[in-house]
Amino acid sequence: MTDMTVENSAADRLESALTGRIDRPAMDTIAHLAHQVPLPELTRLVHTSTPLQSAVLFRILDKDEALAVFENLPPGYQAELIQNLREPEVAHIVEGLDPDDRAELFGELPANVARQLMSGLDAEEREMTTAVLGYPKAAIGRYMSPEVLSLHEDWTAAEAMEVVRARIDGPETVYLLPVVGYGRVLLGVVSLRNLIAADAEDLVADLVRESISTQALTNREVASRQFLSHRLIAMPVVDKEDRLVGILTMDDVLDIVDEEDAEDIARSSGSEPLDRSYLSSTIFRLVKSRIVWLLVLALSAILTVQVLEVYEDRLDQVVILALFIPLLTGTGGNTGNQAATTVTRALAVGEVRIRDLGRVIWRELRVGAMLGAVLGLLGFVVAGLVYGWAIGLVIGLTLLSVCIMAATVGGLMPIIAKRIGADPAVFSNPFISTFCDATGLIIYFTIATTVLGLS
Amino acid sequence: MTDMTVENSAADRLESALTGRIDRPAMDTIAHLAHQVPLPELTRLVHTSTPLQSAVLFRILDKDEALAVFENLPPGYQAELIQNLREPEVAHIVEGLDPDDRAELFGELPANVARQLMSGLDAEEREMTTAVLGYPKAAIGRYMSPEVLSLHEDWTAAEAMEVVRARIDGPETVYLLPVVGYGRVLLGVVSLRNLIAADAEDLVADLVRESISTQALTNREVASRQFLSHRLIAMPVVDKEDRLVGILTMDDVLDIVDEEDAEDIARSSGSEPLDRSYLSSTIFRLVKSRIVWLLVLALSAILTVQVLEVYEDRLDQVVILALFIPLLTGTGGNTGNQAATTVTRALAVGEVRIRDLGRVIWRELRVGAMLGAVLGLLGFVVAGLVYGWAIGLVIGLTLLSVCIMAATVGGLMPIIAKRIGADPAVFSNPFISTFCDATGLIIYFTIATTVLGLS
Repeated sequence: MTDMTVENSAADRLESALTGRIDRPAMDTIAHLAHQVPLPELTRLVHTSTPLQSAVLFRILDKDEALAVFENLPPGYQAELIQNLREPEVAHIVEGLDPDDRAELFGELPANVARQLMSGLDAEEREMTTAVLGYPKAAIGRYMSPEVLSLHEDWTAAEAMEVVRARIDGPETVYLLPVVGYGRVLLGVVSLRNLIAADAEDLVADLVRESISTQALTNREVASRQFLSHRLIAMPVVDKEDRLVGILTMDDVLDIVDEEDAEDIARSSGSEPLDRSYLSSTIFRLVKSRIVWLLVLALSAILTVQVLEVYEDRLDQVVILALFIPLLTGTGGNTGNQAATTVTRALAVGEVRIRDLGRVIWRELRVGAMLGAVLGLLGFVVAGLVYGWAIGLVIGLTLLSVCIMAATVGGLMPIIAKRIGADPAVFSNPFISTFCDATGLIIYFTIATTVLGLS
Repeated sequence: MTDMTVENSAADRLESALTGRIDRPAMDTIAHLAHQVPLPELTRLVHTSTPLQSAVLFRILDKDEALAVFENLPPGYQAELIQNLREPEVAHIVEGLDPDDRAELFGELPANVARQLMSGLDAEEREMTTAVLGYPKAAIGRYMSPEVLSLHEDWTAAEAMEVVRARIDGPETVYLLPVVGYGRVLLGVVSLRNLIAADAEDLVADLVRESISTQALTNREVASRQFLSHRLIAMPVVDKEDRLVGILTMDDVLDIVDEEDAEDIARSSGSEPLDRSYLSSTIFRLVKSRIVWLLVLALSAILTVQVLEVYEDRLDQVVILALFIPLLTGTGGNTGNQAATTVTRALAVGEVRIRDLGRVIWRELRVGAMLGAVLGLLGFVVAGLVYGWAIGLVIGLTLLSVCIMAATVGGLMPIIAKRIGADPAVFSNPFISTFCDATGLIIYFTIATTVLGLS
């Protein structure tokens, strides 16, 4: 009896929470109350509320709750709920939240609901609707195709081919066929080729081979690189419980990689990627894509002016020192960029991981030392012959130290960037050049001061 | 009678030319004589000479001659000739010539001979044997798979499916099926998907759609980019007469593009691509991949020293001028690299062509002017406030001019590189930086001399 009232009141409070304005606190309350309201009550509320309210309530439920509710709904209304979930308002409510809140409030939808929700939508509708699934912007779940033709392991090859023939026009690919078991759990894949090669009475269970799949929440670039490095033609996408929710095809992957590459390449020279082709972009767009970074770099280059100001009197004493400034800073920048580019690429293709930081530093230290030894020796001889051995010594030692410093910093930066969650290409080559310029000048004048006994 | 003697003597001279050492002149003679020897004689010679001799003779024949000879050979010997052509010595003879001679002496083989020559070879044998086909190193013909499952337009869908089922294990892909007519001329393609969807009695001729194909001699990167931009799953490869000689699959394309990208990225920072992963390369290898370019750059940077030497007395008079050297050269380098990277990328993906040179220059001129205007104004104000308006004016004007110069040069370089047949990435960013450093310094001191009235 008391239970009864408690339940009722909980249900009532839930109902009123739904009727009010749907903001973050309201959603917290809804999530909180939903746990106290028994299943039949929840089902009734989802069934009887307004489209928007029922969609929001259903979306906020935990995965298992949602699944139970969905299965208890009258079949006719299930379709209706799917429609409600597709309403733009729902998408906007979900999108409206910042990613963390979204992740906290909206778990994954039950796989079968997600599939029904996504199927039969064109690209545009899909992009809008995927938001409802709560996948973050960069999640591969947003790029996969939900129309996937899957087989059951207890079918014969002949039966499977029948299904393929019957549904040939629907899915994005029929060349790789995911095999699912109870509850759409992914068991593996069968290539259409193997299916055709098989005898009619062979069981799918005997043809299935282990598949390389990815989770819907995986970052889009990570998933794509995995796809390409394994030379796949398609990759099943699963949810946290390994239930098949979609399939990733080469088209999707190439689109993603093209975007990511264009971005990295643009960044590597300190400009923003263009959203249109070079010749069709307006001059203003081009300027816009470059000016910000150029300003930032110029401002940080003021550092070099200040460094030189410190040593102005030394310059006054030995003006020759000024002659080598571009040579030394240039060499530092080049050495740093070589290291940075190599490591950035190695990070992108997964040859190097964050935990390799130590190894990378140790490698670049030695590489820098060897490069510096060669250049330093050369600098010592050439400068020595022309400007006297004292200057030669200064130039030689500076080149040696600058190369060591630049190679190490260049190798270090991309990994640090990745470590702090930034795009390694952001600490782009121009930044490293500027940094190496300033540091190199300090090294230069410190050495000069000591060797030439300036004060 | 006289003819007879002429023919005989020609045949005899050809025979003796074959028995001698096979060097360039010998091959010229063989090619020359082959035209005068009638078909039956040629066939006899190919049939009766030693394996190496017959292979060389056959390979030097024109395509139509070769085809006629091949068809007149006893079937048993045809297979033998194919074997002879696979002999490493033949490959070495062909490889031994420089590309122009090779192109001049060895045309394409008849499509059916080429196919038989290549089929059933593992990757390694294939790489060796493709040399015999005379494809240059970078030709897509070296990367295609010669095992291709093709259909005839007069087959029914059912018959076609039978062929697919029967030969399912052979070819590299069965998902795209080239359709060939008389003499293996490519008519189009049918996707396995459409074949499955078709009714049993449909004719292949009704299912065929136009195919995007490439020529065996096409550059590997060009063909691969085309493959990717059209989002193909496979691409038929044809010879000059449009006869099907092989098929290009996604694996081949991805291998090629990975290599090309790694190369471009490495070059863009002035280092050579590594043939192994970063962490598994020896320190020495890393140094080797960087030292050459670093030396070249350092040596060309000596230019900046010489430029400054010219203006040494000005520096002596106004030592403040030295403070801005890294800032100005740095900004020039950055502006140049932004332009170079954008244009290089645009060239790679085909957004910009060599003939667009004028448009690119005009665009970069304006972009550089706008960037320079912003930076120049900033420089004028900041430097003016700190070091007085005369210096401010020098810095402002220099930044303006340097940005215009750098953007234009940066946009220009990659196109010129491509124009002279070099890899645009070779005129890599470091080079542009170094060039802009020297030019920028000249601009700087010219302006300074005028504005400050130095002498």
